[in-house]
Amino acid sequence: MSDTESLQSRAAALDAADELGKLREQFVLDDGVYLDGNSLGALPRAVPGRLADVVEREWGQRRICSWDEAGWWTAPERTGDLIAPLVGAAAGQIVVGDSTSVNVFKAVVGAVRLAGDGRDEILVDESTFPTDGYIAESAARMTGCTLRPLAPADIPGAAGPRTAAVLVNHVDYRTGRLHDLPGITAAVRAAGALVVWDLCHSAGALPVGLDEHGVDLAIGCTYKYLNGGPGSPAYLYVAARHQGAFDSPLPGWNSHAEPFGMRPGFEPADGAARGRVGTPDILSMLALEAALGVWGGVSLAAVREKSLALTDFFLECVRHHVPDGHVESVTPAAHAERGSQVALRCADAATVMDALIARGVVGDYRAPDILRFGFTPLYVGFADAERAARVLGEVIRG
Amino acid sequence: MSDTESLQSRAAALDAADELGKLREQFVLDDGVYLDGNSLGALPRAVPGRLADVVEREWGQRRICSWDEAGWWTAPERTGDLIAPLVGAAAGQIVVGDSTSVNVFKAVVGAVRLAGDGRDEILVDESTFPTDGYIAESAARMTGCTLRPLAPADIPGAAGPRTAAVLVNHVDYRTGRLHDLPGITAAVRAAGALVVWDLCHSAGALPVGLDEHGVDLAIGCTYKYLNGGPGSPAYLYVAARHQGAFDSPLPGWNSHAEPFGMRPGFEPADGAARGRVGTPDILSMLALEAALGVWGGVSLAAVREKSLALTDFFLECVRHHVPDGHVESVTPAAHAERGSQVALRCADAATVMDALIARGVVGDYRAPDILRFGFTPLYVGFADAERAARVLGEVIRG
Repeated sequence: MSDTESLQSRAAALDAADELGKLREQFVLDDGVYLDGNSLGALPRAVPGRLADVVEREWGQRRICSWDEAGWWTAPERTGDLIAPLVGAAAGQIVVGDSTSVNVFKAVVGAVRLAGDGRDEILVDESTFPTDGYIAESAARMTGCTLRPLAPADIPGAAGPRTAAVLVNHVDYRTGRLHDLPGITAAVRAAGALVVWDLCHSAGALPVGLDEHGVDLAIGCTYKYLNGGPGSPAYLYVAARHQGAFDSPLPGWNSHAEPFGMRPGFEPADGAARGRVGTPDILSMLALEAALGVWGGVSLAAVREKSLALTDFFLECVRHHVPDGHVESVTPAAHAERGSQVALRCADAATVMDALIARGVVGDYRAPDILRFGFTPLYVGFADAERAARVLGEVIRG
Repeated sequence: MSDTESLQSRAAALDAADELGKLREQFVLDDGVYLDGNSLGALPRAVPGRLADVVEREWGQRRICSWDEAGWWTAPERTGDLIAPLVGAAAGQIVVGDSTSVNVFKAVVGAVRLAGDGRDEILVDESTFPTDGYIAESAARMTGCTLRPLAPADIPGAAGPRTAAVLVNHVDYRTGRLHDLPGITAAVRAAGALVVWDLCHSAGALPVGLDEHGVDLAIGCTYKYLNGGPGSPAYLYVAARHQGAFDSPLPGWNSHAEPFGMRPGFEPADGAARGRVGTPDILSMLALEAALGVWGGVSLAAVREKSLALTDFFLECVRHHVPDGHVESVTPAAHAERGSQVALRCADAATVMDALIARGVVGDYRAPDILRFGFTPLYVGFADAERAARVLGEVIRG
């Protein structure tokens, strides 16, 4: 048996033993290898039928009556409660709606206000996904704070008596590095500041433990590992202990204590609903709700175990299939520092990714020189990992 | 012929002569009377098939590739350009995305910043839909302005050298009163301030003329007369002359000049895209785009003419069918002051509306005592108006 045959044989055995493998049937996939679920998750089979029902019956036939009778009005909190167990939150702390960027604004401004007077500095992960930095800059400008970008590892030492809020990514979108959520959270809280975690690249890929680790606020998108569909609404977590004092910069009528009272004065709703803004986007929200159905009975520990096994195996296959010196992993080797993707630095990365996609291996390119491969444990298997590495080697050899 | 038969005979003749009447076939409707299109527009028949294609083919089969190849990325500007002619705007000034409330925040903060230093007052329509007032209060707080609620008719006299921005509704959501957009706009601009018009209750029901009247900024929802579906994304208009200096409080990565450059520093995009924030909500956006197809070849002058004829006829039928003293119209009688709805003050309005809905006449109730009937010229006819008034009379007589 050749080394390649040995890898393929191991992949087959790992796939056969994979308890999550049967979940792949719940998604629409083809005979390619889809390693871009960290950008846009695959379509869950339950979604098209549910969305057709929402459109044709709930909207088409029942129209306005569906706001109450079909539960449209309460969908933001109900969908939030479906996400809650995936990020280690008790019910009643997450609300779904608006984009990730808008939720970053709510969370960072809200955190600054919760921190109280005398604190006028916001720390932000310097390697963050750009939107977080741009929005944090706006939040700083509009709350009279200064913004200080820092490496996440330096945040515990930097948070001090002037720090109001800290915005940090759980997993770096580019490198796939997993940051120390428990440690950074504890340090920020010890400094009297509040931490906002961006879970875009971790929710649905690994355990998060928001409640367990005492996180203050968190936000995340739902179209990556949560498979909500293109641009599906994001979510906001405000820990129960902060809800009563949470002061949103976007107090739309949906966050009013009595929305249909139509009163001129604003009185904030209790609970997670305080994080709502305007009329929720029902088609996308209910598509997401249907998509979240695949998580019933899924163990996040099993997801994490498979994710690490997949990325370990992919890296091993890359070492075997790709000639030395052509790619370099910028994703940490240590499991404790790795999310659910592998990022490889590569010359001509954009061209290489185009060639991979043309051959059915879909990852993505991030400027200037990164090939990014996301491993979604619910529908990616070990044979996929071996094939992706093998095709990468073929492309690089030309 | 009885008076009732005479009204019904006139209704039949008006419907037979109605050039817009054939558009009703493009919507999913039943044998009831739907007078709540000013809250949630009926389902256009083109939407379910298009949305199924977006979900099953574009998302399901092409996944991430659809961002480019299916034109997802450019949908916010493309859909904005479909709305533009409906509100009298040249192309390139409207972008679709986010909720109405979020767009009010962008527009009001943006207007204050455009107004420049030394202006620290925001005027707001005192009878506005509540979310506009709540968000304007937040915008005032975050820009160091004071907020002054005023009757729209008093705005021209009140706008002065301290005024930065004015937020006013084109049509009042409760009374259906149409405010003087040309006159208020001219007065606000003459005072050196900027005006933001909320078009939620006018776009798609009557001509707006944003460019013609020199409006600075405008926002609106798309789920009322534009039939985009529950919670479909709203839009932002920034007049071309302001785009270069428009400074959004929500500068998400989608509004960056080079979004995929993933650079830490923010550089705003040119044009309407500067009003974008985060990843657009594609399912709802493309449902809206399909819904807007019904407007091809529709004359807004004809829409306005029919709208006024419908509300006139409904008021006449109400006078005939409803015993004296039970309802009072709070919608102005003068055409120049009327939008496309009729609001009737009525004792026990909530109970009366429930009874109407149970008998197939769907309007809505607005606290404390208003029955609200919206007339959507694309799919409501004169026989509908007569029947609604007749059933209202029957309900009130008990």
